[in-house]
Amino acid sequence: MRNTFGSALSVTIFGESHGGAIGVVLDGMPSGIEVDTDRISRELSLRRPSGKISTARREKDEFVIESGVFNGKTSGTPICIIIPNLDVRSEDYTAMKRAARPGHADLTAYMKYGGFEDYRGGGHFSGRITAPLVAAGALVRCALEKKGIFTATHIKSIAGISDAKFFGTAEEMAEEIKKLSDMNFPVLDDDAAKKMQEEILSASGDGDSVGGVLESVIVGMPGGVGEPWFDTLEGVIAHALFSVPAVKGVEFGDGFELSKMRGSEANDPIRSENGNFVTLTNHCGGILGGISTSAPIVVRCCVKPTATIFKKQDTVDLVSGENTEIEAKGRHDPCIVHRAAIVVNNLLPIVAADMLFQKFGADWLRA
Amino acid sequence: MRNTFGSALSVTIFGESHGGAIGVVLDGMPSGIEVDTDRISRELSLRRPSGKISTARREKDEFVIESGVFNGKTSGTPICIIIPNLDVRSEDYTAMKRAARPGHADLTAYMKYGGFEDYRGGGHFSGRITAPLVAAGALVRCALEKKGIFTATHIKSIAGISDAKFFGTAEEMAEEIKKLSDMNFPVLDDDAAKKMQEEILSASGDGDSVGGVLESVIVGMPGGVGEPWFDTLEGVIAHALFSVPAVKGVEFGDGFELSKMRGSEANDPIRSENGNFVTLTNHCGGILGGISTSAPIVVRCCVKPTATIFKKQDTVDLVSGENTEIEAKGRHDPCIVHRAAIVVNNLLPIVAADMLFQKFGADWLRA
Amino acid sequence: MRNTFGSALSVTIFGESHGGAIGVVLDGMPSGIEVDTDRISRELSLRRPSGKISTARREKDEFVIESGVFNGKTSGTPICIIIPNLDVRSEDYTAMKRAARPGHADLTAYMKYGGFEDYRGGGHFSGRITAPLVAAGALVRCALEKKGIFTATHIKSIAGISDAKFFGTAEEMAEEIKKLSDMNFPVLDDDAAKKMQEEILSASGDGDSVGGVLESVIVGMPGGVGEPWFDTLEGVIAHALFSVPAVKGVEFGDGFELSKMRGSEANDPIRSENGNFVTLTNHCGGILGGISTSAPIVVRCCVKPTATIFKKQDTVDLVSGENTEIEAKGRHDPCIVHRAAIVVNNLLPIVAADMLFQKFGADWLRA
Amino acid sequence: MRNTFGSALSVTIFGESHGGAIGVVLDGMPSGIEVDTDRISRELSLRRPSGKISTARREKDEFVIESGVFNGKTSGTPICIIIPNLDVRSEDYTAMKRAARPGHADLTAYMKYGGFEDYRGGGHFSGRITAPLVAAGALVRCALEKKGIFTATHIKSIAGISDAKFFGTAEEMAEEIKKLSDMNFPVLDDDAAKKMQEEILSASGDGDSVGGVLESVIVGMPGGVGEPWFDTLEGVIAHALFSVPAVKGVEFGDGFELSKMRGSEANDPIRSENGNFVTLTNHCGGILGGISTSAPIVVRCCVKPTATIFKKQDTVDLVSGENTEIEAKGRHDPCIVHRAAIVVNNLLPIVAADMLFQKFGADWLRA
Repeated sequence: MRNTFGSALSVTIFGESHGGAIGVVLDGMPSGIEVDTDRISRELSLRRPSGKISTARREKDEFVIESGVFNGKTSGTPICIIIPNLDVRSEDYTAMKRAARPGHADLTAYMKYGGFEDYRGGGHFSGRITAPLVAAGALVRCALEKKGIFTATHIKSIAGISDAKFFGTAEEMAEEIKKLSDMNFPVLDDDAAKKMQEEILSASGDGDSVGGVLESVIVGMPGGVGEPWFDTLEGVIAHALFSVPAVKGVEFGDGFELSKMRGSEANDPIRSENGNFVTLTNHCGGILGGISTSAPIVVRCCVKPTATIFKKQDTVDLVSGENTEIEAKGRHDPCIVHRAAIVVNNLLPIVAADMLFQKFGADWLRA
Repeated sequence: MRNTFGSALSVTIFGESHGGAIGVVLDGMPSGIEVDTDRISRELSLRRPSGKISTARREKDEFVIESGVFNGKTSGTPICIIIPNLDVRSEDYTAMKRAARPGHADLTAYMKYGGFEDYRGGGHFSGRITAPLVAAGALVRCALEKKGIFTATHIKSIAGISDAKFFGTAEEMAEEIKKLSDMNFPVLDDDAAKKMQEEILSASGDGDSVGGVLESVIVGMPGGVGEPWFDTLEGVIAHALFSVPAVKGVEFGDGFELSKMRGSEANDPIRSENGNFVTLTNHCGGILGGISTSAPIVVRCCVKPTATIFKKQDTVDLVSGENTEIEAKGRHDPCIVHRAAIVVNNLLPIVAADMLFQKFGADWLRA
Repeated sequence: MRNTFGSALSVTIFGESHGGAIGVVLDGMPSGIEVDTDRISRELSLRRPSGKISTARREKDEFVIESGVFNGKTSGTPICIIIPNLDVRSEDYTAMKRAARPGHADLTAYMKYGGFEDYRGGGHFSGRITAPLVAAGALVRCALEKKGIFTATHIKSIAGISDAKFFGTAEEMAEEIKKLSDMNFPVLDDDAAKKMQEEILSASGDGDSVGGVLESVIVGMPGGVGEPWFDTLEGVIAHALFSVPAVKGVEFGDGFELSKMRGSEANDPIRSENGNFVTLTNHCGGILGGISTSAPIVVRCCVKPTATIFKKQDTVDLVSGENTEIEAKGRHDPCIVHRAAIVVNNLLPIVAADMLFQKFGADWLRA
Repeated sequence: MRNTFGSALSVTIFGESHGGAIGVVLDGMPSGIEVDTDRISRELSLRRPSGKISTARREKDEFVIESGVFNGKTSGTPICIIIPNLDVRSEDYTAMKRAARPGHADLTAYMKYGGFEDYRGGGHFSGRITAPLVAAGALVRCALEKKGIFTATHIKSIAGISDAKFFGTAEEMAEEIKKLSDMNFPVLDDDAAKKMQEEILSASGDGDSVGGVLESVIVGMPGGVGEPWFDTLEGVIAHALFSVPAVKGVEFGDGFELSKMRGSEANDPIRSENGNFVTLTNHCGGILGGISTSAPIVVRCCVKPTATIFKKQDTVDLVSGENTEIEAKGRHDPCIVHRAAIVVNNLLPIVAADMLFQKFGADWLRA
């Protein structure tokens, strides 16, 4: 299924950057769940560009819930959330109409859709399509929080500059999780945040861009959720995260570092505590055999530097087929890592809820 | 869907390590495709343990194609491949019946299945279940090769020891791809291979285990295959690879390294060559916007060290609920990286064919 | 998947009768297909109530294509069509808030959604939700017609009054198919149509309602489309048709009559004509073994009488749990058979295209 | 998905009539469910041909559970059941190798698979493939019975001869349900059964065949199960039933008869009884708005007369493309209605369990 994702809980997305509207259909939510529209607004607001480190495009992202919510609660039917496109300046893209931006989907969109694609502002490939996903995710997230399940994401690094370590048990991370939930540049160490922003501005000044790494946790997941094959927790989470534009790698727990460790270092010892089985360390990122251990699920994804830059680059004219050069114009982000953080953080609850519904049934969420 | 994966081409797997048989149903292959049983045998043989660097369990992996093949060709109906379990020594696992192996799925299997799981030899979580996937993948792979699409996988590193670089255009890699296809320890640099094996034996001597990183390419994929959201090539490939036991990270192209690069370094310039659009470099790993560029698809996955080791570890008795210690007995691999290489290499063709069928229809494979 | 249907081509629907808007996401259409908005308007207009035989609710059904169409052609990305709800008189339903209408989904909606459902006007169960399906189907239908594949539906009977026979080869039915395509009460025999409408008005005068049978054909389907098991053409078509509110039976070819025939009567003799294999009769309705024969696909579905009637009926108060009586108020159709005809006729192309895409790839539609 | 059906509980089938084995993978069963192999044997035995009214092919249908069952209970992993093909006389089919049997899938199999299909004994289209479905269904059925959910099927008619009426509340039908469960020719009225069998033998004597209608109930389904659109109970059940070879129509409750009724006759009055909402009649067949009412689900399907007959028929030679005649040889059933009854009766529990798991989670079955 192309633009639908999920099994017991699914999202279907649609829209182009410069079309009439973008939106999402969230299907599978049980009835009777409170819908916190303020929280949805806040998450959308966190994702929106702001300041000099982001694009100058200013969308209010005012969303309309067209269906599935009745008297402030989910009715159990599909929830369609629409975000109209307002601040559209398609003329900015005229020059790009034919020159493919290197590192961007312009080239492959043309290969796939044969020139019929809506190329304005990246069309359906635009990062803007993540806004409805954030709205849907925020709705799900509020409901999961009432069941004691929280997600949090911080910027682990931008341009090689690292944030403080963010790891531990759910209890140890509780304060940081709370703090991160209100930040549109979610970094634990203020000094690191400052340096990261300097790097972004420096790249921006050069007409260039930077990338980074995000680190997320899901705390409160009960053990036993997930599948041994195919729909492993890792597989399903990664499948979702690779939809966040510019993500090119996903790792869990100690990730690629595990390749250099010995089994005796990588294995997490298990103990019985108050009748529960827990791991004393969490090298496995809360997942063994594709299934949750009840420890925090730890996942990192890398975000490549924004493809659209203001430097001159070699490329082709998609229509004439000839070699040419491109120098981007318009409004573009020199860094999307912090904005991707909000997307990732609201996408994870959708995946977590889907896996939970498969085990417990959707009505569990209301109980 | 739990044990079924794929859309236009799907695999359904079943079986436990010490049950009657393990197997796979491959569904969606068009009719009229030649089935090379020798090649299936060879791939199974490459995956099988051998020498001191692998488990002493010796399975012949004799497979039976129960359906879907008629007069040596696919008939268009589901292909069931069965591999009976023969060399089963369940008594080896008696001691482990209750003590969960740290780093293994014993703990989460218990949490999910409540003690009803077949725990012998890892049951349904056993790496042995990958054998039928290899058989199915080998079948698909032969057919793709006739269309000029090849996969190859080498061990990029084991225990931190790196192989030679394996990158380039399809033409540049042709010889290496051919060479790798017959190796059960697929490393390009013989010295590196020797050192890796020494590390494995050294860990084995300590009753310990090591991990590593695999690097794979798919060459010959036409441009325009994949989807912008959800079923991105990255997302679907990663979803599949996380089913390979012990894989904890997946990255494409320059992967996590991209997080430290600037856009001007990470973007691949595009040129027109003989009427085709090509990228001059391949930092993106042959995928932009979730869709193939026609350059080789480059994917790496990390494999954690084998969980089952012969050192004493803290754990719990799953039945009594009490703390205990475990010291593995039985036949176990001190390293599964090289065996995982064969699995990954035969899993990729299944994913590639699925994505190709979605674009061109399944009959394209026969044409 | 709850509100998503289809494999290579899918529809996702959302909306409630008295919510903000209703709509559909059509996903999987190839790029470059002309979108005939006039035709979509016309089909919506045919479905709309008119005259005394329908409800007095007057919706203009002005639709907005929010995405997936660029410069008048499909762009290859999901097509979201929104129809705002305008003529909403929720107060009509206040009295029904608690009394379940017998024969309607009020009872089971309450059982499923626990009272959180939007009960106004039937909410998500409203026949109104079929409007977006008609819009999506009309879009697909135009494209199929250019490939020589047509659907047509006539009212085979209402209240036991039968239309003329509508059967034959594609050539023999060509004129009728054309005639039916512009009718909002699609009956071949004008006398029969008149009598049917008299029956509807008679029932309406009694505060009662009537049902009927629809008969549809799909002509031009090439042979070899469909699957032998599960996704049989019959199974997939029936699955879709049972979504049309009030449909309680679906049969193909001679349908239930086949149960009284002998094999020698029911079998369709096969002949070779101009290099093609054709059946001389079409008792099987163009489908054998779940797969198309290339003869017209013939399917009938029965539509039960409208549940909402103006007679007093025994029922329960869903909130108090007590027995009560109900006498419907508001605007309701005494017969929905003719409106269901338009829905069925536009739903069939979606199913047909999905099955065709699975065989030939979606780009076949553009070729 | 071609040979996989179901969402929370799925079946994947494979095999050809004269291949190595046929089988099924049942996936999604929770762990800890007792597996009654005697019951599976018995259901397979009921489906097997016997006496003069069936084919002379004698298969013992000895099945092997290769996976997913441990110590007599489900382990929660996929259950693969294999039935080897033993009594294979492929030479009987040599004459048919090229002549398509009218009414059979020979023609469409050739159109779909291009001559590569295994044509022996109908190959993958053979009714024999229903044996593994019966085995899987019997396993599920035993588990549902422990939750008070029963299915029963009787032959409503063969060749126009009708059985006694079989309708009522769950309590009223309890005895008949029990009686039917042990019959391989499940007819309530012994006289009717005798006459039906006479008709079969009479047709058989003429080298001809007969068809019939099956009527099934599912009793004990709680209210609120199903979906308003697409995955309506009717849609999903019908989708499954059209996989039973020769089924050409499916109807629920009063089915096509509803088309002649008025709303005041067709609507089922609702009453409150002991705190539950119940319908006083059951014209709707236990389903409103696609969702269960808690009344028995009533479904009928028609089975066309067996296609393979011993009379001379016009057909084509699939390979030469020329017109020819066919006169079947080999072992064939003059009637498959009674055998289809067993298939339908064991298929319904799979669909019911899938819909129940979606609402309550799979572990509900064990609770």
